[in-house]
This record gives sequence, C-alpha cells and structure tokens, in this order.
Amino acid sequence: MEPDLITLTLYTALQALRRGDFSSLELTQACLRQVESLDPSINAFITPTPELAVQAAMQADALHSLQPSNLNDLALLGIPVALKDLFETQGVRTTAGSRFFADDIPSEDADAVRRVKLAGAVILGKTNTHEFALGATGVNPHYGAVKNPWDLSRITGGSSSGSAAAVASGMCLAALGSDTGGSIRIPASLCGVVGLKPTFGRVSTRGVVPLSWNLDHVGILTCTVRDSAILLQVLAGFDPHDAASADMPVDDYLARLEGRVAGMHIAQGMGEYIEGSDPDVLSTLETAGQVCKDLGAQVEKVDLSWISELALANTRMTQADAAAFHRERLGSNPDWFGTDVRQRLEAGAALTSTEYSLARQVQSEARRRFEMFFTKYDLLILPTTPISAPEIAGNVAIEAARQLTRFTSPFNLTGLPALSLPSGFTSNGLPLGLQIVSKHWGEAQILQAGHAFEQATEWHLHRPALVRLRTG
Amino acid sequence: MEPDLITLTLYTALQALRRGDFSSLELTQACLRQVESLDPSINAFITPTPELAVQAAMQADALHSLQPSNLNDLALLGIPVALKDLFETQGVRTTAGSRFFADDIPSEDADAVRRVKLAGAVILGKTNTHEFALGATGVNPHYGAVKNPWDLSRITGGSSSGSAAAVASGMCLAALGSDTGGSIRIPASLCGVVGLKPTFGRVSTRGVVPLSWNLDHVGILTCTVRDSAILLQVLAGFDPHDAASADMPVDDYLARLEGRVAGMHIAQGMGEYIEGSDPDVLSTLETAGQVCKDLGAQVEKVDLSWISELALANTRMTQADAAAFHRERLGSNPDWFGTDVRQRLEAGAALTSTEYSLARQVQSEARRRFEMFFTKYDLLILPTTPISAPEIAGNVAIEAARQLTRFTSPFNLTGLPALSLPSGFTSNGLPLGLQIVSKHWGEAQILQAGHAFEQATEWHLHRPALVRLRTG
Repeated sequence: MEPDLITLTLYTALQALRRGDFSSLELTQACLRQVESLDPSINAFITPTPELAVQAAMQADALHSLQPSNLNDLALLGIPVALKDLFETQGVRTTAGSRFFADDIPSEDADAVRRVKLAGAVILGKTNTHEFALGATGVNPHYGAVKNPWDLSRITGGSSSGSAAAVASGMCLAALGSDTGGSIRIPASLCGVVGLKPTFGRVSTRGVVPLSWNLDHVGILTCTVRDSAILLQVLAGFDPHDAASADMPVDDYLARLEGRVAGMHIAQGMGEYIEGSDPDVLSTLETAGQVCKDLGAQVEKVDLSWISELALANTRMTQADAAAFHRERLGSNPDWFGTDVRQRLEAGAALTSTEYSLARQVQSEARRRFEMFFTKYDLLILPTTPISAPEIAGNVAIEAARQLTRFTSPFNLTGLPALSLPSGFTSNGLPLGLQIVSKHWGEAQILQAGHAFEQATEWHLHRPALVRLRTG
Repeated sequence: MEPDLITLTLYTALQALRRGDFSSLELTQACLRQVESLDPSINAFITPTPELAVQAAMQADALHSLQPSNLNDLALLGIPVALKDLFETQGVRTTAGSRFFADDIPSEDADAVRRVKLAGAVILGKTNTHEFALGATGVNPHYGAVKNPWDLSRITGGSSSGSAAAVASGMCLAALGSDTGGSIRIPASLCGVVGLKPTFGRVSTRGVVPLSWNLDHVGILTCTVRDSAILLQVLAGFDPHDAASADMPVDDYLARLEGRVAGMHIAQGMGEYIEGSDPDVLSTLETAGQVCKDLGAQVEKVDLSWISELALANTRMTQADAAAFHRERLGSNPDWFGTDVRQRLEAGAALTSTEYSLARQVQSEARRRFEMFFTKYDLLILPTTPISAPEIAGNVAIEAARQLTRFTSPFNLTGLPALSLPSGFTSNGLPLGLQIVSKHWGEAQILQAGHAFEQATEWHLHRPALVRLRTG
C-alpha cells in the first residue's frame, strides 16, 4: 500500500508502520519522491540526504521485524524527519544557511538530533533557514529563498523556513526547528502547520548554532498537535552540558493530551498592539475565542499592549548576542554575510552595554509580570503573526519582517512555552495561525488545549493545492 | 543589670530580654552610648536615629510585658539593628552614600526593613556605605571613610562598611547589608564579624537602591553564625514585587543549625588564583581545612583558578548595570559622584553590548559548572579576601580594592550562597575571614558548617581593643 502523504500524520504513520500497512522504506521513499518533485519549486532543503535516509529506513524496518516487543522505546521508529540546517549532524554538512559554514561537517550530532535518531527517526536531510537564523523571512542570499507551498510567490516566514515548508508539503512528517524571536511559530503560521516552542531550557540547544544563548529554543514543526506532543516527549529533558538546559521533571505529554479544556480560564489578547493586525487575522482570533468558549473555557479579553516593549527588548538582545557570537566573522569577513543579516549584526555590535542592561531588566520584569498573569489565567491566546505570508518580490518581505515577530518574540524574552496551530485562512487562501501560551513548563496544558481546538476545527486538514496536484 | 556589649550576641540578648535580665530600652541605650562614644572615631553611621530607636525599644518592652505568649512570632523583639543606608526607610533619609540622595526621604520601607521591623527589631539608624555601593573600601567622599575598629588607620572594606564596623564595635547586634561583588563578606572579613550573602533571589531587594539588578543580594552582618540564621529566618521569602525574588521554599535554618558536618565532602580552594593571597591568609585557610577534618568532614583540595574569569565578568556586569541605572545622573551631574565611582560608571557606560553579552555567557556557564561542582562536593571553603584590611592613607585602599573582590564576586555572578566568618588573625592582629559556599538554596548547610566551625574555634570571641577600652 502506497502511503498517502496528504492525510498522513506522524501519529497515523506510526500506527500504520506498526500494523505493517507499509514499511519505513516505502514511507521514506514516498517522502523522497515528494522532495524530488516539489523541492525544485519550494527550495526547502539545503542538503537532502536520500541515501542516508534509505539506509536508516531499512534499519528501522529490520529493527521492526526483529524486536517487535521493544518498539515502545522507539517512539519515532521509521518516521521521516527533517532538520533545520542549524542543527549539527555528524558527517553531514551544517551550513547554518551561511557562506561561512558552507563546507562545515560536524563530528557530532546536536543533542536533539541524537535524541530523535535514538528514537528511530529517519533523517531526510537539512532544511533551508534564514542565514544564521537571524531573520524571519527565509529569503537566503546563499541558498535561495524558501517558497511558501500555498503560494510560491510568497515567503514561508522564518527562520525555520525549510522545516515548515517541508512539513506543509508532505516531504516529511515532522521537522526540528529553532526559535529565538518566533522562528518556529512564524513559518508554522504562514505555512499552515503546527509549531511548538517549548519553555526555555526544556530541550537542549547543544550543537545548535547559536543566535542568542539567552533566547534560543529548540522546537518542533508537525501537521498536528498530537504529533508535536510525540516529538516533545522524545526531545524534552535535562542536558548538563547545555548551560541553558533546566533540570525540571518531564511531563507525560501524550497521556495528558485528552485533558479537558472546559473550566480553563483563557485570556484572549486585545489592545492597540494586537488590533493593528490584518482584519483577517483579527476575525480568526475572534473565531478562536468562540471555539474555546464552545469547548467550555471561560474566555476573557485582556489588553496586551504592554508586550510591545518586550518585542523591542527581544530584538535588541538577539542582535547583541548574535553580534557577540559572530564578532570574529563580522570583523574578518563582513561581506560574506547577506546584507540584511550583516546590518542586523552591525546594529547589534553598535548597541551599548546600557542598552543591553536595560533590555535585560525588561526581561526580568516581564517574566515576573507573566508569572503573575498566569496565576490568574491558565492560557493566553493571540495571533501568531499580524499578517499572512508576504510576497517575496522586491523588498516586501524585508519590510514585512519587522511585523512578523511582534507577537512571537515576547515569549522568547520571557521563555514561556508557545504553540502555533492552524486557525483559519485569509480571503485569498493563505493560512493563519493561532498562538497558545502558558506559564513556564506548561507544555502539557498548551498541547491539551491545542489538541482540543484542533479536534473541534478542520483547518489543520487542509493541504496546499500544489501538494494535492503532485500526489493526488 | 547593664548589658555587657562585649559578650552579647543577638541570640544571648534575645534570651536575656525574655528572661527580663534587662529591657530592650536598656540594651538600646547601651548601644546608643556605644555609638555616641565610638562613632566619632569610626564613622559607621550616616544617620543614627536614637529618638526613633528609644521609641521602638519602649514599644518592644511594652509588647513584651503585654503579650508574653506571642513572642515567638517576634523573632527580633527588642533587638537593636542597623541598616546600610542603601535600604529605603519610611520617613528617614536614605542617602545611598551619595550627594544625589543626600536629602531623599522615602515614603516606604524596603521589604527587608519591613520584615525586621515586623519581627520587633529596634532600628538604630542608617550606616555608612561606599557611595552607591559601587566600591569595596568604604572610603566615602561625601560622608567620610569608615574606620576599621581593629585599627582606625585602616579601611573596613565595603561597601557595607558601616554595618560591619557597627557590629564589630558593639554599636548594634546585627546589621543589614547588600552584596553585589562581596560588599557584605569583605567588610565582615576585614572587621572580624560574620557576613551572610544568601542565594540570589532568597531575600527581596525591593526598596534597596540598585547597583546591579542581576547581582544584588540582601544579607546580614552579625557576631555569630547562629545570629545570622535567626535573621535569615526573618528575611527569607518570596516577594512577587521584586523581579529577582524566587518563589522557593524557606528552610528552618535554626532547627537545622546543629546538623552534623561529619561526613560532609568539602572542597578547599587552591591553585594560582588563591595562592596569590597573603601568607597569613593561606595559613588561615590551611587551619580551616584542618578544623573541618577534625569535625569529621572529608576535605579535598581543588584547583579554583578558573574562577578568575568569573570575577572579571562580575565586575563588568556590575559596572554596566550600574551605568544603566545611573545613566541620567551620569549625564546631568557627573561631578556629583566621587572620583572612583564616577570612573567605574564611565567604564561601565563605555562597555559594548558584546562585552555585556560575553559576560552574561560566562555567567550562564559558571552557574552550570558550579551546579556540577556541587553534585560532587557539599561545600566549598576559600578565603574571603586575599589580604587583610589595607590602610586608608594615600591610594593604598583604592589600589587594594581590586584585590578585595577576587574571591567573593564569583559567587555574585553565580548567585550561590556564601558565608564569611572569622577564621584567624594576621601577625599584626587584623582579622581574617573564611568563606563557605554551597549550591543554590544551600543556606542551611552553610550555616550548619559555619556554626560547627565557630563552636570548634574561638576567633569570633575576640573584640577590637578599642571596644574593650571604652566599655570595660
């Protein structure tokens, strides 16, 4: 039986693999055909690794037939997964979307890569990213722009651009990404998939090329909320070798997935800062609030205008930390950077310690303010992005980029977990995302609510026309 | 019966007050007489508040006679306490040792002040401090240098200079201080008293004029370790209005005070960075290691040379954060600052965001490194300062200041709790301190070890000759 990439989720694929409906090799080859046919238009991959993928799939199939009783420990056995090209991979080049690392072949896997491999995943390759993850468009001067599967003239958002596009177009069932100002949630929103940024410190960032040591989060892009829960279960845990990693207990995200939303107290973002969004975005938020009410939650509109200061502090801290990390490259080969990234790094390098210190103070106070906020509310919902995917042509994308991180970056500054999931379409058929945020370590509750929301709606079932045409 | 200020500790005073051996008024008046007779030479107080103290002592005595059954809730009832003049006090001017705040009368008490007042303490006044706490000598250009009670030609160390001198000379039984690079432990060491800097976030800093939001710790100066435990019990707790405060359970420090040191695994600092200390300091450390062994601990010498980088990062971050906090004053009235403080602020303002970001990265990695360190060791011992109290004359103190924070500031950067307690004397009779450090939230264990050390030694029983002469 040929795997149907249109309706397949990671969860349904796992069940089908276990039943023997198809093999991991068949599934992997279907994904690789999808890459072969669609990626010339989409440009999701910088380095696909089809030979390694076929080999891993065959190993997964062998393991499946040899040890059927131990499969529960292999939560991703045989599942094709793509990796943002910021994650170091042993023996496979890791460019970070840059010219500097164009031929860099790491000797070790990033900790997150090690974990998904140990769980039996089949790695399909390395996905395109905004250069050094320092931008939200995915327009990469060295490896080309990633095209949005819903409209090839538009950006995917970024920086986990290729990861979002690959999941959205059925090239893989899940992808790893990183998120410093919205880099998982923004492309998830603009490409109509699910993106999860867990709490700061929940997933090890060791072996992921840094953007900001203080704001980087490793996370997940999938087709459904349940799929994100499956991957989070694999990724979450303490890593003593990552200074940012936290030694906190890991929930059973899957067991808690069916928890009730009824009775939850949900804050729905409003105020000037939110209401500057596109009308489509605002009506989507209204609908989402109604869905939550229908699920039995108590929904209260809350002014969030004060988070604008957080977005600004997050941008500054990111640029400053990035300028610190790249200081030698910026000194020796500034012209090797793309124009937009170089300008951001130069802006970061030009910041004073006073500006950094004040941004850090905003960070401390915002964390406390949200701690207090989440003693009153279980969850916060707000749009993921104030706009849908902008066009690539001209400077539209760069102009729009400033808009893209407005609602996501406050949750990097505060380190709060945040999920983006499909919540509607614009009148011209572009996907939009809803963001669900909780207190620190509240991933299980976010996934619960996201899963219930998804069960109650059908937006996540849509696939881009281009995918339908190619595989139909 | 006249209170004997030479042998009195906070603990013995509490017992005597409860027995009715003397009243709080008698005790307070004895302290005030000590201030009157000695402070013209020592200069510990910027603003003594004798009238308020007498009033508070009479209230304490009234409470004592009215409600003898509820006294356990009033852990400091009738005890004379001094406050570093960085702590805001309702209706009493709070200069922060500066010209800027020379006439500043706050409308509210700092949270720590509120707590000691609620516990029944009698506030004696506001003690001298290095200007804005930004220095370790206690040589204040606006309010005069604080003189070391052991030798009036020498500094006390700082910045909680007056607090240490007041405790050392029997002007009060305890004092509050703040510590951003060693500002409690250094003067405690140089003045022969006990100084405790709890874990970052353990005691609220609300209402304490900031030096660095990220490194400031509120703490305690007393004659004995037990006295510090009594005060920590009063001060420790979560303050939602202080962004740095942590919502962590508070131990019963007093109940745990008699815990065993036998079996503890103690690391004794060594390596180039430590061994550059004065010979007297090093032999004191050797003796301290032997005392710990005699108490049944396993003592292992451990190279700590790597903490030099932490001291440097702490200095940079302090100067940058201070420059951020004082940016308007530095712009409008730079000449109102003393020379050394202005130079430090200007150095802070000149730091780039890259330097700040790298210091912060050192901070994150050091925290993790010490987390790992304290999975192997229960405690770390090292000298508090590499030198004894330098002379005030000339630039000796300023030259020496750079030395003073070498061993203390790494534990501000990491936020680890650290106690300094008397551990010997130089050949010319100046006191020296031993520092005991533990993992985060390990105050109870530090106090245990410090108490056992104190019981096994007699260094804390000595008082400066000047105190003996005046009150003998």
